[in-house]
Amino acid sequence: MTMDMTFLGTGSAYPSPHRGASALVLRTEGDCWLFDCGEGTQTQLMRSPLRAGRITKVFISHLHGDHLFGLPGLLCTVSLNTNPDPQQNLNCVEIYGPRGLRKFLRVTLGLTGSQLLFPYAVHELEPTPEQSPEVGQLSLEMTAECGPLHPQERPGRTISLDVFSDCYLLFEDKKFVVKAFRLFHRIPSFGFCIQEHDRPGRLKTELLKELGLKPGPLYGCLKAGESVTLESGRVVLPCEVLEETIPGRKVCILGDCSSILGEGPLSLCNGADILVHEATLGNEQREKAVDHGHSTPDMAAAVARACRVRKLVLYHFSQRYKPSSLQTEGEEDDDVTELKRQAEEALQDSGVEVTLAEDFLTLPIPLRRPR
Amino acid sequence: MTMDMTFLGTGSAYPSPHRGASALVLRTEGDCWLFDCGEGTQTQLMRSPLRAGRITKVFISHLHGDHLFGLPGLLCTVSLNTNPDPQQNLNCVEIYGPRGLRKFLRVTLGLTGSQLLFPYAVHELEPTPEQSPEVGQLSLEMTAECGPLHPQERPGRTISLDVFSDCYLLFEDKKFVVKAFRLFHRIPSFGFCIQEHDRPGRLKTELLKELGLKPGPLYGCLKAGESVTLESGRVVLPCEVLEETIPGRKVCILGDCSSILGEGPLSLCNGADILVHEATLGNEQREKAVDHGHSTPDMAAAVARACRVRKLVLYHFSQRYKPSSLQTEGEEDDDVTELKRQAEEALQDSGVEVTLAEDFLTLPIPLRRPR
Repeated sequence: MTMDMTFLGTGSAYPSPHRGASALVLRTEGDCWLFDCGEGTQTQLMRSPLRAGRITKVFISHLHGDHLFGLPGLLCTVSLNTNPDPQQNLNCVEIYGPRGLRKFLRVTLGLTGSQLLFPYAVHELEPTPEQSPEVGQLSLEMTAECGPLHPQERPGRTISLDVFSDCYLLFEDKKFVVKAFRLFHRIPSFGFCIQEHDRPGRLKTELLKELGLKPGPLYGCLKAGESVTLESGRVVLPCEVLEETIPGRKVCILGDCSSILGEGPLSLCNGADILVHEATLGNEQREKAVDHGHSTPDMAAAVARACRVRKLVLYHFSQRYKPSSLQTEGEEDDDVTELKRQAEEALQDSGVEVTLAEDFLTLPIPLRRPR
Repeated sequence: MTMDMTFLGTGSAYPSPHRGASALVLRTEGDCWLFDCGEGTQTQLMRSPLRAGRITKVFISHLHGDHLFGLPGLLCTVSLNTNPDPQQNLNCVEIYGPRGLRKFLRVTLGLTGSQLLFPYAVHELEPTPEQSPEVGQLSLEMTAECGPLHPQERPGRTISLDVFSDCYLLFEDKKFVVKAFRLFHRIPSFGFCIQEHDRPGRLKTELLKELGLKPGPLYGCLKAGESVTLESGRVVLPCEVLEETIPGRKVCILGDCSSILGEGPLSLCNGADILVHEATLGNEQREKAVDHGHSTPDMAAAVARACRVRKLVLYHFSQRYKPSSLQTEGEEDDDVTELKRQAEEALQDSGVEVTLAEDFLTLPIPLRRPR
């Protein structure tokens, strides 16, 4: 199954002509999952090879505008380009994010008279007080739902922290289990861990033929882990006829933060193929970064090292860092590649590869080798 | 006083890489007044020679997302680039728009923890039921204010229709009187008329010298329309020493509509220097346009003719109309210049000039000749 990740916006604080506001798409066989949706994300999508209409799930890390203000408009534009036949629009767009997101969408879509053609549901994560300084905690009154559901809104779940694992279970299906975890930021922020299930290895077709088994439903049973009894009475175990298991991939995408809360998330993210971590400012501005609830390359590298990830992708750069392609030769200041250098220095001998995200960069996430 | 108008977005329904969503700036000696603020307006502003920090007033024609979704982000970005000294930020950004706008800003800014550095006030226009089909009327409950004021929000006025003039008086100051009027659209929509006050003509300095009056405070009195008594007892009347009055300019900017409600607005807009009117679809799609509460070039031209304006500017084009600069030779379809041709045909012999708005087009609004 092909899997890749495309960055639509890599700037912090606000969108600019050089960097979009935060948004990235994780694509698995055509299905698009959108992570954060800053203002202008729909236009960035139009500039990319991705199709907004393929977005089936949205994950909002936190409620700051540069991660959220593009969501109502994106939903409206997807709806405008949707087949008006209701039978074609039965699939619910599942939206996950902090408490308050349900109200945000209900009010923005409601006040603008936006009648979507497809259903949506907002599943809210309950933050805990440790996630932000007191001043950043949004009041229960402010974040409480108000008014009736939007006509296309389906009731969403309210998801609480599992205190044993320090995580939130968002959902599990045949292919993936997706969890969230708490980050510290000026307002409650979350990271997401997308874990693909391990998959059975290939069938040893030569061996199956030798056993007298022809392609058919029994192949499916074996692949699904069930034993099969031949006419001769011989029981064929899956492990006999399957190549080695293909381990599932793991992708971790963190919202804005100056730290991760608890030990659970470190275990959860352990061995990830890709860790997407913000690096708003360079190491030399660590104090300012932390004051604003943000990270430096050093801090991102420390997480990558603790989680023994394969690849660390830095994003969410201060708008002072122009993309490398726009850098004028001789200008030494505010060179975004310096952020990469700083992370690499911190990860020397760790084996962790460092990549700088840029708008429209697509990173393939190749299948793991069987084990 | 210099005055010009810059279009930041001329597309309908949603922003695209070819056309921004609705937004335009009327500039008078550096002060910027923003009319509508679709998603991406802040990025369009960055691409223009205008400065977002100079915006002192915002006018929202109606609450559809393609005219509104950029406003919370724009305010946040202006705030980020504002001098943090509170003494420097005493000027209140005045925001005018339909009932519901106050709630929209309070909820979007509140839920995203957006702490602005400058005060703002929302002055709401009370729509009337005739402005939209029943299905488009936003309920009183939906548009009612909720929760406490945003920390930087100042109480705004609620402005009702003046039934005698069919208009809403938004404000009047030394230079301008600004009124709004009702349009028919899928949800309540408004047009705005910005009327500059007439200004006294130049002082006849040669004549003043002959009378023995030297430059000084008395010149100001005469210019302000006050008589002056010379030492000799001779009374100098302003009309003696002033050139002819310079008539104020008039600019009318209409939100989305398929018609104007009442006769009052036609008198109000009579003789405007510029009428900015939507033309979402071509004449051949009139039925579809009207169904969606929109206009064609013919319909815009009829308003321009009825109001005897000098210049009709068409904007808010369906995204199917690419800007002329992106038009490939030989492609006859969806040519935006066809919309101009249609309006010109309808305005033959009327003396009304037709202009097509494009993103980043700036139109000067020259002083009128003295009369």
